[in-house]
Amino acid sequence: MANYSYETEIDVRLRDIDFMGHVNNAVYATYLEQAREAYFRDVLDISLEETTTVLVSLEIEYERPIEADETVTVALSVSELGEASLPMTYEVRADGERAATARTVQVLADPDGDGSRPIPGEWRRRIESQRE
Amino acid sequence: MANYSYETEIDVRLRDIDFMGHVNNAVYATYLEQAREAYFRDVLDISLEETTTVLVSLEIEYERPIEADETVTVALSVSELGEASLPMTYEVRADGERAATARTVQVLADPDGDGSRPIPGEWRRRIESQRE
Amino acid sequence: MANYSYETEIDVRLRDIDFMGHVNNAVYATYLEQAREAYFRDVLDISLEETTTVLVSLEIEYERPIEADETVTVALSVSELGEASLPMTYEVRADGERAATARTVQVLADPDGDGSRPIPGEWRRRIESQRE
Amino acid sequence: MANYSYETEIDVRLRDIDFMGHVNNAVYATYLEQAREAYFRDVLDISLEETTTVLVSLEIEYERPIEADETVTVALSVSELGEASLPMTYEVRADGERAATARTVQVLADPDGDGSRPIPGEWRRRIESQRE
Repeated sequence: MANYSYETEIDVRLRDIDFMGHVNNAVYATYLEQAREAYFRDVLDISLEETTTVLVSLEIEYERPIEADETVTVALSVSELGEASLPMTYEVRADGERAATARTVQVLADPDGDGSRPIPGEWRRRIESQRE
Repeated sequence: MANYSYETEIDVRLRDIDFMGHVNNAVYATYLEQAREAYFRDVLDISLEETTTVLVSLEIEYERPIEADETVTVALSVSELGEASLPMTYEVRADGERAATARTVQVLADPDGDGSRPIPGEWRRRIESQRE
Repeated sequence: MANYSYETEIDVRLRDIDFMGHVNNAVYATYLEQAREAYFRDVLDISLEETTTVLVSLEIEYERPIEADETVTVALSVSELGEASLPMTYEVRADGERAATARTVQVLADPDGDGSRPIPGEWRRRIESQRE
Repeated sequence: MANYSYETEIDVRLRDIDFMGHVNNAVYATYLEQAREAYFRDVLDISLEETTTVLVSLEIEYERPIEADETVTVALSVSELGEASLPMTYEVRADGERAATARTVQVLADPDGDGSRPIPGEWRRRIESQRE
């Protein structure tokens, strides 16, 4: 089983539930975004709003549906930090059980243009020490 | 370039735009869902609400941001129809330009249990003839 | 019956439907926002994104539920234009039948501070002539 | 100042923030729904999903914008319980400051038809005793 170095709880909203009575598939992407925001705040001490990171890719495997009254947590790890890219792997858990796994890659947008910029050294240090 | 056999237009909402001024990453998953619903209605002559299909996996590659005032279309194709699985590939276009590509796999949920059930023959015929 | 001088169609999304099988109550507020955006674009020739209008109040009376497969339109009128406030009344229709009525008041935010600023003369002229 | 007998915290999501950098106006309606759900669970010991309540009206006065990093709570009270209607008043607070006030009226849907049904005596007792 994969190890995840960070975990955060998600408040499931009634609005997240679709006509089939389960958390809608697109809402999982919002849960991952919330987990990233919590990680940025807790580990990097910055808000996702302050940084201008851009999502490059998203992959989700749905394993079992999530019900409205379940307690949801998202566990995540930063995997193989690139020069400019920040890849993450996730496990979405409902009542402690794995409900989905996911992967994202983000890059830091260059504030002056369309390109990306290197991940700051300070971020690298914080990410490394959180992993240990 | 990939060929897509079906295309539908998406109404971008102001609510889809996030604090960075672009369509939020999770909203792309909703655009894909809308495209599936349109395909089910137009090609299979059923509403996604009537069938109980379940998403098994979702992959999105974001290529460029989508602005609030752009015209968005989603092109899709059913690829390699399985016994019980319905895989689709997508291209999300903004003002005619590719903004993202995506893949999903759906299965038909068994109404009596947790399993999946085979894709009906009638669906196969309609999917094949739409592709030609 | 009230007269409405402007009408726009709304694309109902599967994601708008809640666990009870109807358009969720909060989504009506999004439909009203979409109608305002369409009105701003068509009548005032500006995007709601360009102007910094702020919603001051919102009232909705829900008359009957809206189903996923219904065609939704929002009719609206600007009522009693104030010095700095833009009040609107709405009728949300599903398959041509009234499903809800609503009222909003917006003000134009002062770009330099927290206050509001007067509605431009050009807007007044366009609003008046659209009403006739 | 109005007294509110119940209060719950809301997790603001990045997805709640719109292009102007504040919580979108329609999302307030979702916050109210979350507060109702918490009240139903804590005071009536039922989930909003189990009951089939229907929103009849919604009124919100927006007093000041809510930022992404603020702590949001919703305070609410049940006001003048009717035969079949459950009216509530709310205060939405951001970092302890009033950001909006709101009122809703709900009715209990009759499971067999389109009508409403009386509020159960058990609910009345629980609502009364929570108020004291």
